Amino acid sequence: MTQITILGTGLIGSSIGLRLKQESEFEVVGFDRYSDIAKRALQVGAIDRVEPSVRQAVRDADMIILAAPVLGIRVLLEELAGQVGPNTVITDTGSTKAEVMKWAQQYLPNHRGWVGGHPMAGKTQVGPASADAALFEGARWVIVPAVQSAPHAIESVQNLVATMGATPMLMDADEHDAYAAAVSHMPMLAAMAMFSMERASEAWPELSLLAAGGFKDMTRLSETDAGMAFDIAMTNRDHMVHWLNRYIGALMEIRDRLDDLEGEEDFFKLLAATEFEYSVYRLGKVGREEGKSELDSAEFTIQDFLAGTWVRERINQMTKDSDDRLREQQTAERRRRDL
Amino acid sequence: MTQITILGTGLIGSSIGLRLKQESEFEVVGFDRYSDIAKRALQVGAIDRVEPSVRQAVRDADMIILAAPVLGIRVLLEELAGQVGPNTVITDTGSTKAEVMKWAQQYLPNHRGWVGGHPMAGKTQVGPASADAALFEGARWVIVPAVQSAPHAIESVQNLVATMGATPMLMDADEHDAYAAAVSHMPMLAAMAMFSMERASEAWPELSLLAAGGFKDMTRLSETDAGMAFDIAMTNRDHMVHWLNRYIGALMEIRDRLDDLEGEEDFFKLLAATEFEYSVYRLGKVGREEGKSELDSAEFTIQDFLAGTWVRERINQMTKDSDDRLREQQTAERRRRDL
Repeated sequence: MTQITILGTGLIGSSIGLRLKQESEFEVVGFDRYSDIAKRALQVGAIDRVEPSVRQAVRDADMIILAAPVLGIRVLLEELAGQVGPNTVITDTGSTKAEVMKWAQQYLPNHRGWVGGHPMAGKTQVGPASADAALFEGARWVIVPAVQSAPHAIESVQNLVATMGATPMLMDADEHDAYAAAVSHMPMLAAMAMFSMERASEAWPELSLLAAGGFKDMTRLSETDAGMAFDIAMTNRDHMVHWLNRYIGALMEIRDRLDDLEGEEDFFKLLAATEFEYSVYRLGKVGREEGKSELDSAEFTIQDFLAGTWVRERINQMTKDSDDRLREQQTAERRRRDL
Repeated sequence: MTQITILGTGLIGSSIGLRLKQESEFEVVGFDRYSDIAKRALQVGAIDRVEPSVRQAVRDADMIILAAPVLGIRVLLEELAGQVGPNTVITDTGSTKAEVMKWAQQYLPNHRGWVGGHPMAGKTQVGPASADAALFEGARWVIVPAVQSAPHAIESVQNLVATMGATPMLMDADEHDAYAAAVSHMPMLAAMAMFSMERASEAWPELSLLAAGGFKDMTRLSETDAGMAFDIAMTNRDHMVHWLNRYIGALMEIRDRLDDLEGEEDFFKLLAATEFEYSVYRLGKVGREEGKSELDSAEFTIQDFLAGTWVRERINQMTKDSDDRLREQQTAERRRRDL
């Protein structure tokens, strides 16, 4: 019987375990540095048995999955050195990949079974109690082969990903880290910056009462486990700084356009284009090809949309409003003069 | 029988109607500039009957609710001039209040039944089909009395709010607009800026595939109806610019702290404090007093938390990691020298 060992049985490790137990016949062995967490993973049915050490957990493993925060993966890789046979497939779920790939090369030099990985799914809750066998369904799972990775190892990890209900996406480590900074790591810091700024405001008692779903959604990533967030920041700093700067630039631009009293019509078009493009995105238009057939028409209608009846109607209304405002001001001035 | 007239039967107007029909014996009359939308509101059971004009809809109304985007409220107020008796209670649900209060004074000068309002709830979907009788449950509903508002009018609006399952919060118009800019209007533009920036990136095909729940949550407000967003921006520009600038400042600060190679420990403490404060917020600690009894202890443990075992352990690990990195660098250098 094939044995899969999960090192780190938190949310991600336990979710993988639950799915493996649901979809496969593999024996799933678990280890966690915090024995309570391993015990809890056993209780929720994410693993078949717990081992008290990395060495014991990996002894008969055909595949090892490292499911810890990034800096924890480093420690695990160090502990694996000398403990695994040449055919053992080893992969990880770390949020950044360039550093992890370096550590793997350092501690398991030229190990042909090593293939990096990162499931693009998760939630801010942590621990086996939040585990969900469907967590990865429909998500992308980045696979980062090393130069020396054996084809069978890459294939095994692809099979694991398919078992999770996710879609594998092969990628270079640096490419992954740049993209993850854009859609995951920078947004996390942006959420924290927004929450902390409002939290520090003197008006926070009122703000916290008035904040509704929009604010909660936008700041939800503030709840990211600090240890996990820290490890990401320490291993993907440059890309995160780059995307923070781009975001700051985008905010300055929208501020300037909002502040431009002459640019009302352009500002409205910007809002309308954003609404339109976002709805196309949420309808499933992602990547280069996917969903193209159903949404092809959408691509061609953004211009039509912006030139369309509804927009024209709104712009006419806006112009009327501006004219009204002007007329009012003039009337008010005239009245003042008459007094 | 008391008659309530809803002018504007989109998401908000229809949700109010549904709740009124569920919780009261009032007759609910509806009007919408787009007759299809009024018809749809009738179909979903949000109103008892449709009237074809504002004049006809308000003829026998005891209370009138203006539920349109902000600039639409202005048009409705203009149309109400001369159509309502002195005792008719009139309120609105507009996202900004200072301009609305001015228009009310302009078109219905010293009308004692006028009381401004703004329910702090909503969703990005629009129209009667998305209406929900529970939309306002547990939310705050800002009430902005005018100088001349009669006590009975304020009381009627408070009763309406209670019927909706919301909590009334009396506030000055400018105060409301400043707060709403902070927790609702600025975050809306921030979501749009983030989405548009990534959407415009050459890597968007890859980014859109890798984006998971975090990115979707943070950019969801991009889907806000452009007309509604525009009206908000045009009537709350200064406060929005102010909060955009504060947010840009907060992002620059977190970028600098991330970029500070000497500040790892402080950066970790920042992440840990944010995680902690956010979880306290999400546990229901809002306002000045509410939830105090259950969460009192939390207020006192943030310092303990930051000085606590887990944080100490992480910081020790971090120090060890830094030491390890230093040692490795030294070893690598030594090796290079030895070669």
